[in-house]
Amino acid sequence: MTVRIKVVNPNTSAAMTRNIHGAARAVAAPGTTIEATSPAMGPASIESHYDEALSVPGVLTEIAAGERSGVDGYVLACFGDPGLDAARELATGPVVGIAEAAMRTATYLGRTFTVVTTLARTRGRAWDLAERYGVTKFCAGVHDVDIPVLELDQDPDTLRKLTEACASAIAADDADAVVLGCAGMADLCADLTKALGVPVIDGVRAATLQVQSLITMALATDKRGEYAKPPAKAYSGLLSTFTSPL
Amino acid sequence: MTVRIKVVNPNTSAAMTRNIHGAARAVAAPGTTIEATSPAMGPASIESHYDEALSVPGVLTEIAAGERSGVDGYVLACFGDPGLDAARELATGPVVGIAEAAMRTATYLGRTFTVVTTLARTRGRAWDLAERYGVTKFCAGVHDVDIPVLELDQDPDTLRKLTEACASAIAADDADAVVLGCAGMADLCADLTKALGVPVIDGVRAATLQVQSLITMALATDKRGEYAKPPAKAYSGLLSTFTSPL
Amino acid sequence: MTVRIKVVNPNTSAAMTRNIHGAARAVAAPGTTIEATSPAMGPASIESHYDEALSVPGVLTEIAAGERSGVDGYVLACFGDPGLDAARELATGPVVGIAEAAMRTATYLGRTFTVVTTLARTRGRAWDLAERYGVTKFCAGVHDVDIPVLELDQDPDTLRKLTEACASAIAADDADAVVLGCAGMADLCADLTKALGVPVIDGVRAATLQVQSLITMALATDKRGEYAKPPAKAYSGLLSTFTSPL
Amino acid sequence: MTVRIKVVNPNTSAAMTRNIHGAARAVAAPGTTIEATSPAMGPASIESHYDEALSVPGVLTEIAAGERSGVDGYVLACFGDPGLDAARELATGPVVGIAEAAMRTATYLGRTFTVVTTLARTRGRAWDLAERYGVTKFCAGVHDVDIPVLELDQDPDTLRKLTEACASAIAADDADAVVLGCAGMADLCADLTKALGVPVIDGVRAATLQVQSLITMALATDKRGEYAKPPAKAYSGLLSTFTSPL
Amino acid sequence: MTVRIKVVNPNTSAAMTRNIHGAARAVAAPGTTIEATSPAMGPASIESHYDEALSVPGVLTEIAAGERSGVDGYVLACFGDPGLDAARELATGPVVGIAEAAMRTATYLGRTFTVVTTLARTRGRAWDLAERYGVTKFCAGVHDVDIPVLELDQDPDTLRKLTEACASAIAADDADAVVLGCAGMADLCADLTKALGVPVIDGVRAATLQVQSLITMALATDKRGEYAKPPAKAYSGLLSTFTSPL
Amino acid sequence: MTVRIKVVNPNTSAAMTRNIHGAARAVAAPGTTIEATSPAMGPASIESHYDEALSVPGVLTEIAAGERSGVDGYVLACFGDPGLDAARELATGPVVGIAEAAMRTATYLGRTFTVVTTLARTRGRAWDLAERYGVTKFCAGVHDVDIPVLELDQDPDTLRKLTEACASAIAADDADAVVLGCAGMADLCADLTKALGVPVIDGVRAATLQVQSLITMALATDKRGEYAKPPAKAYSGLLSTFTSPL
Repeated sequence: MTVRIKVVNPNTSAAMTRNIHGAARAVAAPGTTIEATSPAMGPASIESHYDEALSVPGVLTEIAAGERSGVDGYVLACFGDPGLDAARELATGPVVGIAEAAMRTATYLGRTFTVVTTLARTRGRAWDLAERYGVTKFCAGVHDVDIPVLELDQDPDTLRKLTEACASAIAADDADAVVLGCAGMADLCADLTKALGVPVIDGVRAATLQVQSLITMALATDKRGEYAKPPAKAYSGLLSTFTSPL
Repeated sequence: MTVRIKVVNPNTSAAMTRNIHGAARAVAAPGTTIEATSPAMGPASIESHYDEALSVPGVLTEIAAGERSGVDGYVLACFGDPGLDAARELATGPVVGIAEAAMRTATYLGRTFTVVTTLARTRGRAWDLAERYGVTKFCAGVHDVDIPVLELDQDPDTLRKLTEACASAIAADDADAVVLGCAGMADLCADLTKALGVPVIDGVRAATLQVQSLITMALATDKRGEYAKPPAKAYSGLLSTFTSPL
Repeated sequence: MTVRIKVVNPNTSAAMTRNIHGAARAVAAPGTTIEATSPAMGPASIESHYDEALSVPGVLTEIAAGERSGVDGYVLACFGDPGLDAARELATGPVVGIAEAAMRTATYLGRTFTVVTTLARTRGRAWDLAERYGVTKFCAGVHDVDIPVLELDQDPDTLRKLTEACASAIAADDADAVVLGCAGMADLCADLTKALGVPVIDGVRAATLQVQSLITMALATDKRGEYAKPPAKAYSGLLSTFTSPL
Repeated sequence: MTVRIKVVNPNTSAAMTRNIHGAARAVAAPGTTIEATSPAMGPASIESHYDEALSVPGVLTEIAAGERSGVDGYVLACFGDPGLDAARELATGPVVGIAEAAMRTATYLGRTFTVVTTLARTRGRAWDLAERYGVTKFCAGVHDVDIPVLELDQDPDTLRKLTEACASAIAADDADAVVLGCAGMADLCADLTKALGVPVIDGVRAATLQVQSLITMALATDKRGEYAKPPAKAYSGLLSTFTSPL
Repeated sequence: MTVRIKVVNPNTSAAMTRNIHGAARAVAAPGTTIEATSPAMGPASIESHYDEALSVPGVLTEIAAGERSGVDGYVLACFGDPGLDAARELATGPVVGIAEAAMRTATYLGRTFTVVTTLARTRGRAWDLAERYGVTKFCAGVHDVDIPVLELDQDPDTLRKLTEACASAIAADDADAVVLGCAGMADLCADLTKALGVPVIDGVRAATLQVQSLITMALATDKRGEYAKPPAKAYSGLLSTFTSPL
Repeated sequence: MTVRIKVVNPNTSAAMTRNIHGAARAVAAPGTTIEATSPAMGPASIESHYDEALSVPGVLTEIAAGERSGVDGYVLACFGDPGLDAARELATGPVVGIAEAAMRTATYLGRTFTVVTTLARTRGRAWDLAERYGVTKFCAGVHDVDIPVLELDQDPDTLRKLTEACASAIAADDADAVVLGCAGMADLCADLTKALGVPVIDGVRAATLQVQSLITMALATDKRGEYAKPPAKAYSGLLSTFTSPL
């Protein structure tokens, strides 16, 4: 029986969705289908709390569509893990964010990790997530490479700059591993690993494998309480199409 | 010079907006105008992570409109503080959530507080916020009265049930104060205080006064880093009207 | 009906009491009377745990006098918040310390704040208070300007030195706001704000507004347990005048 | 290319090793070989800190043997995760403990989990591990079924007793998931899941999949610092055979 | 060379000072002299934050007198550890509070301890101290026997009541040890130990031995920074006799 | 009646055992006998998690022998406190590790301490222990002198290098005290204290005095639960001599 994992890129960049798709497929088990999608609404890239908030309706639309078509589990492929709680309410199967999976994966590899994200203003969100996931003591630092999300695959110097930013972060934090702080860095993971000589964790791969593992164990979000299906009610205005959550 | 504070009710219930408006006006300073609004889009009430996520675009529209009209500060009047970070990016003046203000206010009144919210499934969000705001050690418990948000002002037994739920919570947690876990309870604060004999904190009042105090001190969100205006970019689909954040 | 707030300067410096009085009056609501006092006993300034301990009897005398004259709420205007718990037992209305109010106010303005105090040896007390108030994660650092308390208004270079110390602290801690770590800096808050371009929080203003807000909400310390009036008993020796707490 | 994962049962019970072997094989990917072993030295079962300490030399012998034969990754299949740090120094590939994997897996499934272990005296170790792994806030409680390890597969009432203990734990802790606190419970996971209606996590499966995922991502313990190969030195007495760690 | 340890009873009860003296002498080393004193000023007993605050000037007078007479180290024999920081500034030798020593001693004896104090309103202070000393995770609960301090040695049922309160606390908290929460319970420690069958820690003994140990190791408070001698300055009014701290 | 304290050096270096013996004797009370021993099996020195794990069987053999001969209490004289929990199960009297005692002792002397250990790779263990003992907030840093354990008494520059490492650590961490991170540094404590001018804590002395204090108070590990004697069972292979724990 085929396992279907849907990887949702919360921004609307088709190029990044392809990058993410590749990373997820690279680690999926033989019998598993990876569907990578990008919402029909929302921000072109996510570089602020505002962008992140506005990405969530589109993410939830993708989850709802996945539920209608029988998807087994979901990956949220943006390092802010936007809409994670709401997605867990909607979905019957497991939902895993890439920040969550990347940070927890890193804790198996040494005492501490350091995060390298795109822009300085997004570092706070990474710290918030580290606290939420209980990994504050493992997270030795959060740094940025100062490249906007959509320029990661445009800037010819991205790999060099990111290598340097990671090396600086490792040295500054005496860290045992690097967590890549953006799904758009997924295709650079192997090159960075080679260049840096330390474990480099791509959250897209980590989350895809985590969802796969949960499905293998027949584990999913507990639906008896906080994460039960959301109560049906009226949604109005632009969001009136959300009226019926399922 | 008149101070203008906009109180945003993140759900679309006009009755609750009136309730909230009254609570805010009851504490505003003489020269202050309170504008209470409810978004043109979003859920009728907020009782799940899903509802909360879908309330945020409407909240942000209200903040953006407030910015265009010169509002001095904002209150987010839902106990989940939906969209708080994004709203702080958009607004020039201070933005305060009612959970944030209520919980911090409670810390001035004794060693611990207990929260009484509407439905059991929303308790987790209250704990998450307590952690975010650094008040976990002051929060002795989170309880619910088991009344849906929109029935608070319909159920003739609301006051009695809520009084009982608060009394139970105080006894169970040996708490020094009660934090009301829903903006829709704002009009019951005085009656509950009288019935219970302990400090009862309504977040709408607490947040309104906190915004007023910040304005009086000429304090607002630091705009140099994480909370700078969000970078302009394209938003597509249903959310294409959000294209230009300001 | 007039609201009366008593601002207690725990040291015996009349000049600092005037400074504090001015800061509190600058933010008080129209119908509010600010009474700023300094105890008839105690240290000329508070620069050690020893000074702070010896300031407390005088502080409590002022609270007791306030209770006899019907004061509605109190501010403790020293950044060590000396005698806060005992004052809460004595007073019927709310009591707020300036460190408490300043640190909590700062949490509304960004992710982190930095504290700049007078002398290096007082930094430990600031950290202790940050822990007590649950703001350790928001407090990115505690620094000093190396000027004794009573020289703040004597040294012609105070503003320049303090501006430099704040700027260094902001840079070192990547902080979003500055908390002034001494009531004697209250009159410099506006100049520092202008010079630094970040939110600068004066605890005297923050605490005065916090007390005012609590009074407006009819909230005061819960008197049922830990903060009930202290049990009457004999006090002997120099302190025999304290015999009857009320 | 075949992936080889070695699952080390730290006690010397062959029956439990078979149970563990079955659980690991049930989740391993098609091309993966599971080798389940039990040391040639050590305690028959692990029910105290003393037992756990004495299980470690045998565990390390198994890791060293695995290294000589080219094993790709290891599972430590006792809920105390005995010798985890030392095993990470010895091994080139990843090493994962079942408590570690089970507890972290549980965090993907809801807000909290509860642990049900064998004997009351082992609960403390579970709390220590929860702290080490940063999951204290997710761990709502640790309970025991009061059945010695080696009687789990002897006592005809084990399933009934364990079902009752889990149900009590879930109710007492309002928990979203159950973590089985002993590798010897691995074969009961499916029955317990069915009986309880909540996610039940078997650490053997969780750890096996975690090792597999790390191998798939080519991730292993960082060997540059704390977890580098242990320095060679003389070991004497009974342990003289350990002289050369590799 | 004789070692001199001064045990300061912060209240003015001579009977309690005798009790404390006996406990300290019972554990002091052969060549050590125990001087137990009670201040010439202050509250008859300490049962509130107010009492505690007013006990501190007397405590500091006793420390200052001890310094003039060459005392080697000090015990503060009230479970609130009143004036500990200020005393450390004044004294050249070590200063240890009984709450501090009792709680830390308890951590050597098992996983958790429970505290049994006199009156319910003093429980908060015990929690504050547990946080300050870093033992929150070891402190499973704080309970009270509901006997005022000065009635401990008057009430013929004290031993019975205290035994029952301790037994209840142990059962409620599943605690490994009991910490006596009042110096006035020192003479009951042996009887309680016998009756309860668990370790019972009297802080007077624990602190006396801790001071003795520090003196044996020639260790004392670091005097280079926060705990340097307090800066000399004017003290006025009732406290003018404190003018010269040394 | 003579008190007998057994100090177990977990490595097999006789020279280090003599050093440790001297330190313990230097602080023991007149009527106390110090027995310093080294196991008949295990690593020559402990510089990795692997070494530490392999030191534990030997440590436990020494504890078991001590129990047979009526020892009153034990010190584990390696800064990793190897086998502490298991030793507490075996022993009737108290067992104290030197890291535990040193770190807790340091908390009486100022706000923070810094640890200086031998090799960089052992720093992680010190942080783990700091967390376990609840002293993370007091531990300002962990540093190393980069000298292998067995060269401490061979390298003619040890004192100079260690003095420099401690001075650097104090400056980097603004620490009030230094904790020596290896039992092999015990004989240098006095010289370091003189050279540095800050409190320097040798864990061997601190733990010996702590055990002595516990014995004086007739306090020992609670034996009712987690630390009861380990259940008897079969141990096989090299460890078959451990069959009967007592």
